[in-house]
Amino acid sequence: MSETRVHNLAVSLDGFATGEPQSLEAPFGHAGERLHEWFFPTATFRAMAGGEGDPAAAPDDAFASRWGDRIGAEIMGANKFGPPGWQDDPDWRGWWGPNPPFHTPTFVLTHRPRGPVEMEGGTTFHFLDASPADALAAARDAAGGLDVRIGGGPTVVRDFLAEGLVDHLHVVIVPILLGRGVRLWDGLEGLEKDYDIESTTTPSGVTHLTFDRR
Amino acid sequence: MSETRVHNLAVSLDGFATGEPQSLEAPFGHAGERLHEWFFPTATFRAMAGGEGDPAAAPDDAFASRWGDRIGAEIMGANKFGPPGWQDDPDWRGWWGPNPPFHTPTFVLTHRPRGPVEMEGGTTFHFLDASPADALAAARDAAGGLDVRIGGGPTVVRDFLAEGLVDHLHVVIVPILLGRGVRLWDGLEGLEKDYDIESTTTPSGVTHLTFDRR
Ligand SMILES: NC(=O)c1ccc[n+]([C@@H]2O[C@H](COP(=O)([O-])OP(=O)(O)OC[C@H]3O[C@@H](n4cnc5c(N)ncnc54)[C@H](OP(=O)(O)O)[C@@H]3O)[C@@H](O)[C@H]2O)c1
Ligand SMILES: NC(=O)c1ccc[n+]([C@@H]2O[C@H](COP(=O)([O-])OP(=O)(O)OC[C@H]3O[C@@H](n4cnc5c(N)ncnc54)[C@H](OP(=O)(O)O)[C@@H]3O)[C@@H](O)[C@H]2O)c1
Repeated sequence: MSETRVHNLAVSLDGFATGEPQSLEAPFGHAGERLHEWFFPTATFRAMAGGEGDPAAAPDDAFASRWGDRIGAEIMGANKFGPPGWQDDPDWRGWWGPNPPFHTPTFVLTHRPRGPVEMEGGTTFHFLDASPADALAAARDAAGGLDVRIGGGPTVVRDFLAEGLVDHLHVVIVPILLGRGVRLWDGLEGLEKDYDIESTTTPSGVTHLTFDRR
Repeated sequence: MSETRVHNLAVSLDGFATGEPQSLEAPFGHAGERLHEWFFPTATFRAMAGGEGDPAAAPDDAFASRWGDRIGAEIMGANKFGPPGWQDDPDWRGWWGPNPPFHTPTFVLTHRPRGPVEMEGGTTFHFLDASPADALAAARDAAGGLDVRIGGGPTVVRDFLAEGLVDHLHVVIVPILLGRGVRLWDGLEGLEKDYDIESTTTPSGVTHLTFDRR
C-alpha cells in the first residue's frame, strides 16, 4: 500500500514551522536557520553536499534518514518552492540548484501553475492547481507504487492532515519561541485520535514526534 | 535567593493549557482531564488523597514532585481560583475543599479583590489587584525567604514570563491537539534566550520541558 508521509518538519515550541516575512534573502523569515540547526550535523543533511555526519547527531539522524526511504513522489506548497512572487519569474526553478535533492516527480501546489520543468537527477517539477486529494492521486500515479512525501510548508501539511490524508507524520519540536510565522497545528483539534504518537528526546535538545495512523 | 517557579503546567501540542468554555462543571472546558492524565498516577498526586503512586509513573513523578520543595507562597489567576462569575459568590473558597493543597499564603490575582480567607492546613487566600511585579513582591514577603510558585493558569504564567519574572519553568507537553482554549506561548518570542532548556520524554508519552534562567 502506498503511504503518505511527512518527514523532518521542524516547528518551534509555539508551533511555527517558518518565521516571517518569507523572502529571497530569508526563506524562513526571522526564524533564519534556527529551526534546522538540529538537522545540519546529521549524515542525511551532510550527504547532500558529499560530506559525513557528526556522530553526535546519530540520534537525530535515526529520524532524519527515513526521509527518502521508498518515496516515489513529493508534494510541496508554492511557498516552499520559492519566495513570494516567484510565479512572476519564468526562470525560477526552486531553491535547490540544477540537481534538487528530491530525485522523483515533485508536485508544486499553486494557484498559478505552469508547464513541467525537468531537472537533473530525476526531479521533475509539476505545477498543480488541485485539491489535496486530487494532488495526492496525481502524485500516487507518478510514484509507481512507492510512497508520497508531503514536503511542506506548514500550510500544505496542515491541509493534508485536516483532510485525513496523512499516514505518517514526523515533527521535530525545537525549543525556541518564534512568536510569529505560519503555524502547523491550527484547526486540527482531535488529530491525535487517529494516530499512535511517540515522542523521543535527543541530546541536541529537540523532541521527535511521530504520528502513525492507527 | 528566593526564586519564582512554575511547575507541572500541562499544555497540548498546540499550546493550550486549558480548553473552553471554563465552567463549574468543566473547569478545563472541552479539555476535560486530558491534560492531566500523566499526573494522576504519580505519587505526588496520589499523596494528596493519602494514596500511593503507580511505580510506572516514577519518571513523571521525578518532575511532578518538585512542585512543593522550598515553596513559601503561591500566586494564581482568578480563573484558576474559580469558574467565571465566582466573584459574585461571597462563599466561593476555591475548588479544593476546606484543606487546599497549597499550605502556604496563596495570592489570587483578580480585578475584584475581597478580604483574605484562612483555610485549614496553612493555606490563606489573599486577593490582589496588582501588577505581576507588585504581586510577586507581596508573595515574596509572605514566603519568608522561600520560593514563590506561579500556579497558573496560562494567562498569569504568560504575563509573569513576559515580564521576565520567572526563574524556573516546568511545562509538560501532552500529545493531544485541543484546537482552542487559552494558549501559554503567545507573545513570548525569543524567551529561550534567557534560559537553559532541557527536554525529557517519559514512557507516559509526555515531554517534560524545564527552563532555568541563565
Ligand atoms: N519547518 C520546516 O521543516 C519546513 C519544511 C518545509 C518548508 N518550510 C518553510 O515553510 C514556508 C512555506 O510554508 P507556507 O505554509 O507559507 O506555504 P506552503 O505550504 O509551502 O504553500 C502554501 C501555498 O501553496 C499554494 N497552495 C496550497 N494548496 C494549494 C492548492 N490546493 N491548490 C493550489 N495552490 C495551493 C498557495 O499558493 P499560491 O496561491 O500563491 O499559489 C498557498 O499559499 C517556507 O518558509 C519554507 O521554507 C519549513
Ligand atoms: N494546564 C495546567 O497545568 C493548568 C494549571 C493551572 C490552571 N489551569 C487552568 O487554566 C485555566 C485558567 O487560566 P486562564 O489563563 O484562563 O486564567 P488565569 O491565569 O487563572 O487568570 C486570569 C485572570 O486573573 C485575573 N488577573 C490576572 N492578572 C491580573 C492582575 N495583574 N491584576 C488583577 N487581576 C488579574 C483576571 O481576572 P478578573 O479580571 O476576572 O479578575 C484574569 O482574567 C483554568 O481552566 C484552570 O483550570 C491549567
